[in-house]
Amino acid sequence: MRGVIMHAPGDVRVEQRPDPVLEEPTDAIIRVTATCVCGSDLWPYRGTDDVDRHPMGHEYIGIVDQIGDDVKSVAIGDFVVGSFVASDNTCEICEAGFQSRCTHQVMMGGIGTQAEKARIPLADGTLVKVPGTPTEEQTKSLLAASDVLGTGWFAADAAAVGPGKTVAVVGDGAVGLMGILAAKQMGAERIIAMSRHADRQALAKQFGATDIVEERGEEGIARIKELTNGYGAHSTIEAVGTQESMQQAIGATRPGGHVGFVGVAHGVELDGTDLFVATVNLLGGPAPVRRFLPELIELIMTDQINPGAVFDLTLPLEEAAEAYKAMDERRATKVMLTL
Amino acid sequence: MRGVIMHAPGDVRVEQRPDPVLEEPTDAIIRVTATCVCGSDLWPYRGTDDVDRHPMGHEYIGIVDQIGDDVKSVAIGDFVVGSFVASDNTCEICEAGFQSRCTHQVMMGGIGTQAEKARIPLADGTLVKVPGTPTEEQTKSLLAASDVLGTGWFAADAAAVGPGKTVAVVGDGAVGLMGILAAKQMGAERIIAMSRHADRQALAKQFGATDIVEERGEEGIARIKELTNGYGAHSTIEAVGTQESMQQAIGATRPGGHVGFVGVAHGVELDGTDLFVATVNLLGGPAPVRRFLPELIELIMTDQINPGAVFDLTLPLEEAAEAYKAMDERRATKVMLTL
Repeated sequence: MRGVIMHAPGDVRVEQRPDPVLEEPTDAIIRVTATCVCGSDLWPYRGTDDVDRHPMGHEYIGIVDQIGDDVKSVAIGDFVVGSFVASDNTCEICEAGFQSRCTHQVMMGGIGTQAEKARIPLADGTLVKVPGTPTEEQTKSLLAASDVLGTGWFAADAAAVGPGKTVAVVGDGAVGLMGILAAKQMGAERIIAMSRHADRQALAKQFGATDIVEERGEEGIARIKELTNGYGAHSTIEAVGTQESMQQAIGATRPGGHVGFVGVAHGVELDGTDLFVATVNLLGGPAPVRRFLPELIELIMTDQINPGAVFDLTLPLEEAAEAYKAMDERRATKVMLTL
Repeated sequence: MRGVIMHAPGDVRVEQRPDPVLEEPTDAIIRVTATCVCGSDLWPYRGTDDVDRHPMGHEYIGIVDQIGDDVKSVAIGDFVVGSFVASDNTCEICEAGFQSRCTHQVMMGGIGTQAEKARIPLADGTLVKVPGTPTEEQTKSLLAASDVLGTGWFAADAAAVGPGKTVAVVGDGAVGLMGILAAKQMGAERIIAMSRHADRQALAKQFGATDIVEERGEEGIARIKELTNGYGAHSTIEAVGTQESMQQAIGATRPGGHVGFVGVAHGVELDGTDLFVATVNLLGGPAPVRRFLPELIELIMTDQINPGAVFDLTLPLEEAAEAYKAMDERRATKVMLTL
């Protein structure tokens, strides 16, 4: 099959890869119908994370092609969505809603879903069947649910977003934008997008942002306080993963407020005294997207949300190199790869 | 009046201090009937925090002696308890239950309650009247409510302790012990005290600990996992404030679990990647004791809890130097100073 391999930073190629096979009786093989490039794929692309001939991709929708003997909940031919972490969905951690830290978790990034096919471990726990036949718009949205929507949703949930709340969103990439959509859906009264890019600001408003703050760092924090009677936001979504963005998120949040952080941490060190004084709730990490998938699929298939609008470029899988380049150069927010 | 002054590390004296006066119409002056030495008072005593002729003490119970013109909720002669942070109890932060970060907060440690009298700013928001006449045991418990009980209670609340939960407690000082009492009262199924001192272990068991773990660091974490089917604790109370104790607390907690940290942070740096991977809820800081005071007073005055048992030495205020020494040398867990 054809699949994306990152040979080195900046060097993305579509090559022949071996077809996946069922390795465990709990595996399924899916024919990937769409996949995409994640903001986190840019860390190795830009040389921040090490990479050496690595199969890429962890987001996917597709059709079940083969199933292992123990797979009961999906059948060949089913149209399915799964998250970027395969999980059994039965251990105590999964039952508590933290499937991204399942005792038997398998990171799909190690398998590489930017390919024609993919092995899905723990298929019963991982895959969710989509009812009916999605439209083209719904298809895009289902792909978004696989990671960016589910991650933005978790961030909003972790930040305890709810009716009447003021929400600040640090980061205007796809996950930040999905956090805005989630906050809007969860009933937030005010959603302040921290963004200095006109195109992202427009998308942010489309997804539900009520205010835009262009300032960053201490100035950004001061601006959020100004907009909230000096208190700070009730809920802050952090969707970048840098020292500056974490400090900005914590600083923008009122005492007793909540920070949901989902930007993959790079070089972040939190000072214990600052954290002690801040007195904010912190919850983050790899999002347990699987927890939210049934609800997200329902919202998408009934046209209540349109997260697929975050894809502003669609290319065939064969043009994956251009997809990475467009995201790296900020010409695209999020690129869908079709097969 | 007589009051405690720390002249320098290790140098505690009881001296003549000026009587407090009403400075604002919202102030009250109380005649302190009992006060105590806090574990956090040992940071300057041991030279970790700077100190230079500082009035000491932030825990207190007493009788209202004078009130400012605007004070409505307490009257002269009332027996009252307050927390170590004076708060208006009306701002949005207070209303959300985070009185320790009130917009108008005044730290009582800056005033110094190890003295015959103390000025209580924002008396209406800060002081809670005790109904009836407390027994000697109840008096001790009310004093504990002023900080260590309230702080342990907040830690347990922040750690989302509840029925059926397994709770780990890092730190066997007075606050850790009060965290155990709180966890027991909140219905925890299992309470694992991390302690290697026989006297503290005995107290821990008295307050409700079901298991003792003597190991620390990675070994301590491994032991907690062993006791919890490999998952880790649902809820962990951190009551020390060092790098080791924070790492131990986070490491002992299962993904999706909660860490309530109340040890005043000293030299703590949290690695962003570790925190991201841990996927635990973190909430801590100076405890909003005021939130819990009415409930704690009720539990104490109806003899449902006996936190006063944490005081294992009682001395007159004049012997404050010996009180500090006894705590520093671990001859006492918590010393009450009477007037």
